[in-house]
Amino acid sequence: MKAFLDCIPCVLQQGLRTVRLTTDDEQVHRRVVVALLAELATADLTATPMELGQIVQRIVGKIADCSDPYAAIKKDSNAQALKLYPRLRDIVAAADDPLRTATQIAIAGNILDFGIPHLKIDIEATLGRVLQSPFAIDDYELFTQHLAQVSNVLYLADNAGEIVFDRVLIEQMLSKSVVVAVKSEPFINDATREDAEAAGLTDQVPVIEVPIYPDTSPQFEEAWANAELIISKGQANYEAYSEADGPLFFLLLAKCDFVAQDIGVNKGDMILQSRY
Amino acid sequence: MKAFLDCIPCVLQQGLRTVRLTTDDEQVHRRVVVALLAELATADLTATPMELGQIVQRIVGKIADCSDPYAAIKKDSNAQALKLYPRLRDIVAAADDPLRTATQIAIAGNILDFGIPHLKIDIEATLGRVLQSPFAIDDYELFTQHLAQVSNVLYLADNAGEIVFDRVLIEQMLSKSVVVAVKSEPFINDATREDAEAAGLTDQVPVIEVPIYPDTSPQFEEAWANAELIISKGQANYEAYSEADGPLFFLLLAKCDFVAQDIGVNKGDMILQSRY
Repeated sequence: MKAFLDCIPCVLQQGLRTVRLTTDDEQVHRRVVVALLAELATADLTATPMELGQIVQRIVGKIADCSDPYAAIKKDSNAQALKLYPRLRDIVAAADDPLRTATQIAIAGNILDFGIPHLKIDIEATLGRVLQSPFAIDDYELFTQHLAQVSNVLYLADNAGEIVFDRVLIEQMLSKSVVVAVKSEPFINDATREDAEAAGLTDQVPVIEVPIYPDTSPQFEEAWANAELIISKGQANYEAYSEADGPLFFLLLAKCDFVAQDIGVNKGDMILQSRY
Repeated sequence: MKAFLDCIPCVLQQGLRTVRLTTDDEQVHRRVVVALLAELATADLTATPMELGQIVQRIVGKIADCSDPYAAIKKDSNAQALKLYPRLRDIVAAADDPLRTATQIAIAGNILDFGIPHLKIDIEATLGRVLQSPFAIDDYELFTQHLAQVSNVLYLADNAGEIVFDRVLIEQMLSKSVVVAVKSEPFINDATREDAEAAGLTDQVPVIEVPIYPDTSPQFEEAWANAELIISKGQANYEAYSEADGPLFFLLLAKCDFVAQDIGVNKGDMILQSRY
């Protein structure tokens, strides 16, 4: 998905939020904003929003001298999510259709995204709401049909914390060979190997580390090519891979007006969309 | 009030909203965004938000060749507000304390601001809510005391449409000499002489035209110096004059987190604050 012009103010807000996590020094905040403005003025605005987000990461890294501003938040998200994990498993175990319920729980985990501003994170209320709400795009039947026919699944993980919820869905697919892709370096609150470990995933499935889009690696290319079904989780992966070729299913909550518009739904809608 | 760094993304959003009123041509939108980024990168970020807003006005004016993007919206706001005017007068006439009710109605008119994004404008619901809600800062007693003692009032008007609601308050002060200040040139949806005329105000009181802050004029300076009580209406006038000297009363709805923070209230709060 190409960035909308409306992504530019949002990238600036992301820059401010990010640098404020690293220091209270207003001068540093100001230098980051000015550097972002200057860089965005000459940036390729036809890039994906994720590529614009990388400018934030680089500038904050350089000016605030911090490569992982979200480290503490990510740790906290994992801890919060892990406390819920036994309950999530129980909910799935008691469900009429455990796979279906697990996709809903994975979406609920997508709401645990500290990269989005002013999102009220009431986990209990969110869980209840998500479990009772229909998906705006619901290709679950296609999903189950395809899943039944394949052996190799690639799961593109999204954020820390959320990855514990993903584990609940991944555990419903352990009769397949599932590979989980996380980021090879810190990027906002995206899950890295450390988060996959914290979530307990590394004991269950192979976890590969992938450079930040549009970078790639031979290992990721191979995993993509081998995959018979790819679950792309969350908004940032949609932004990156919405025009990619592959047996993709996008599983996400549309958290901003422009991703929603690109998909053809409303902000706040839950989506399981086949591009199979 | 000095701009917060958070005003920068907001100024960009304002630029996008404004240029989109002038043309559907995406290339023009893009050129405006790029020009804004470049200009903001070297702007004095200790300016007031209004001064940053002027950059938008100038750049859209130049690139989209449109000096008054909000012209149609302003006309429409006036027409909507004028339809309500007889009812507003009736409400005030029937009130226990007509002056009090008129200040509440003036605040309700402040919600008719098309310069602020995604504000749902349900006039009926707004009126009902405002008439029943307390002000977060309520210097009404001081206001009535001072008003009783003075002869010369200066009323700094805010937006088109809203100025009809201001008229209802101004009509409660016609035993005084009231001068109304509007903008001498288009600036977002700020009221100009044309709007004061549409509102019927020019038949009732002297209306002076004031350059956009921080510009000023001898006529405005004189009106300010002569005024024994200045009513500064709306958020933009607060941003401009919050640190000015004068017998000021600020009457506004805090529409953004940062103005609210500067005042010490919450977003959405209504304020009648004395700086007398």
